[in-house]
Amino acid sequence: MSGANQREFVSVCEVGPRDGLQNERVHLALEDKSQLVAGLVKAGLRKIEIGSFVSPKAVPAMADTDALTTRVKRTYGTGIRTLGLVVNAQGFDRALAAGVDGVCIVTVVSDTLCQKNNRCSSQQATDTAVALIKRAKESGLSTRVDVATSWVCPYEGQVPLDAVQRVADQVWEYQPDELAFCDSIGHAHPYQVAKLFAAFGERYDRSRLVAHFHDTQALGLANATAALFQGIRRFDASVGGLGGCPFAPGAKGNLATEDLVHLCHLSGFETGVQLDDLWATVALLEQQIGRPLGGQSRSWFHSTQRTQHN
Amino acid sequence: MSGANQREFVSVCEVGPRDGLQNERVHLALEDKSQLVAGLVKAGLRKIEIGSFVSPKAVPAMADTDALTTRVKRTYGTGIRTLGLVVNAQGFDRALAAGVDGVCIVTVVSDTLCQKNNRCSSQQATDTAVALIKRAKESGLSTRVDVATSWVCPYEGQVPLDAVQRVADQVWEYQPDELAFCDSIGHAHPYQVAKLFAAFGERYDRSRLVAHFHDTQALGLANATAALFQGIRRFDASVGGLGGCPFAPGAKGNLATEDLVHLCHLSGFETGVQLDDLWATVALLEQQIGRPLGGQSRSWFHSTQRTQHN
Repeated sequence: MSGANQREFVSVCEVGPRDGLQNERVHLALEDKSQLVAGLVKAGLRKIEIGSFVSPKAVPAMADTDALTTRVKRTYGTGIRTLGLVVNAQGFDRALAAGVDGVCIVTVVSDTLCQKNNRCSSQQATDTAVALIKRAKESGLSTRVDVATSWVCPYEGQVPLDAVQRVADQVWEYQPDELAFCDSIGHAHPYQVAKLFAAFGERYDRSRLVAHFHDTQALGLANATAALFQGIRRFDASVGGLGGCPFAPGAKGNLATEDLVHLCHLSGFETGVQLDDLWATVALLEQQIGRPLGGQSRSWFHSTQRTQHN
Repeated sequence: MSGANQREFVSVCEVGPRDGLQNERVHLALEDKSQLVAGLVKAGLRKIEIGSFVSPKAVPAMADTDALTTRVKRTYGTGIRTLGLVVNAQGFDRALAAGVDGVCIVTVVSDTLCQKNNRCSSQQATDTAVALIKRAKESGLSTRVDVATSWVCPYEGQVPLDAVQRVADQVWEYQPDELAFCDSIGHAHPYQVAKLFAAFGERYDRSRLVAHFHDTQALGLANATAALFQGIRRFDASVGGLGGCPFAPGAKGNLATEDLVHLCHLSGFETGVQLDDLWATVALLEQQIGRPLGGQSRSWFHSTQRTQHN
């Protein structure tokens, strides 16, 4: 078991502008989203899932992802890496035109959620993912596949590891840069998280696997701990704990970036993120969204004891 | 790695009436404490740290521990096991007279906190602990030693594992029934928790070791996960997340019993605790204390999705 005092790096992909904002009632204007990204960049986040290239009718909050991407790339150039979520060829074309650095291609293990989210079966979505990996590689984009419902489906319940492996094997054959296992609704527990990453860390390339958690049952940090213990060093997280999935009832906010970063720093990992600046961005986001935000570590961060004892 | 689907038992010691109430501004009346204990018993908790047998001047909230113990034993008989915290011979005499089933004898690894908490050096407190184990065994009481500041001291910072071992070795020689390692102020992280229990699980008897966490930095569940992964099956927790230490600045509430139980149940362990009844006791306690209580899993427990998807 590694960790403390080794100064290993944990790579945090900020998914707030996508997984976070897509599920908020308040839709941020392009200018607000730009300010949010500016805050994230100032806090040291260098990999940002900027939005979804999906139907604006299905997910209205993501309608300006093309414009945001173009603006962000114009502002920061190669200083940050932008990722765009895609589920089909049309979305891929838009993402490419908008100038993203990489695509997150979503497939779903369970058919019921896949029909609602991707409007096709799990096998069809996986075939599409494979086709899009090829196109992305031809286009010089980085490639990542998000395997949704890797542990639990809101409609079908527990998802067997075999079923996840069937999807992941097909995708891995085409060597995406990253393969993300997603607890889409935040119902996984640390033992099943450990089990999946123990198995898949061996089967695939541990260093390219990503853990994506939601904090629905307040187990985001416990699950992240289980993944860290299995040698996983890439995580998704959402500033302020924003997040959810519009088609997955029960999905709550993602694991908060500030919680994940705090866990990593305390445990001796480097992330490149400055927590003070990150909490300042949480404050900005609270003004934009109009409701209190912030992860489980909120009261600790704001306590007088923190500066005295750390 | 064990856990899910094995139906192993995790033993939860409820420390709310002691570690919880000693640090609340509102001091509960004896009648209120009795009601609280009734709620805990109804929820299935069978091992309860009922209070501290310390100077009522030092910790006024614990002044009625003798009376509470007598009343609880009269009500429940052998149906529950009551534990009383002691730090010296006077306290031990009171605990014995009051009729506790067992004593939690506190020693502290770091001298600075030991001077404030026990009014002696760590070595003196450890000598006292040894003497009290002997007396408790002669008196037929169950014995447990709480090793405070097992990871971090609020005054001295990081506590070396060697120093903890020096204390624990001396105590273990006299074979207490349980040996508890306490993150007294909630500053430990999962890697150091795993390291300690990996080492001491081998050195002592893993099945008799107890993990005691506070949720100061929102890592209570992450640390509990680390301890579970190391085969620890005995935990302290505090209903509603009550708790702290009057002499340890920065100490916040204990790991909430409802959070721990939820983690255990979701992970496939049995605890004997009914979460609905436990949350009813949290509600009672909120009325008694006059402020909102409840662990990190509060919003999940009260969500409409819970009943739909679990």
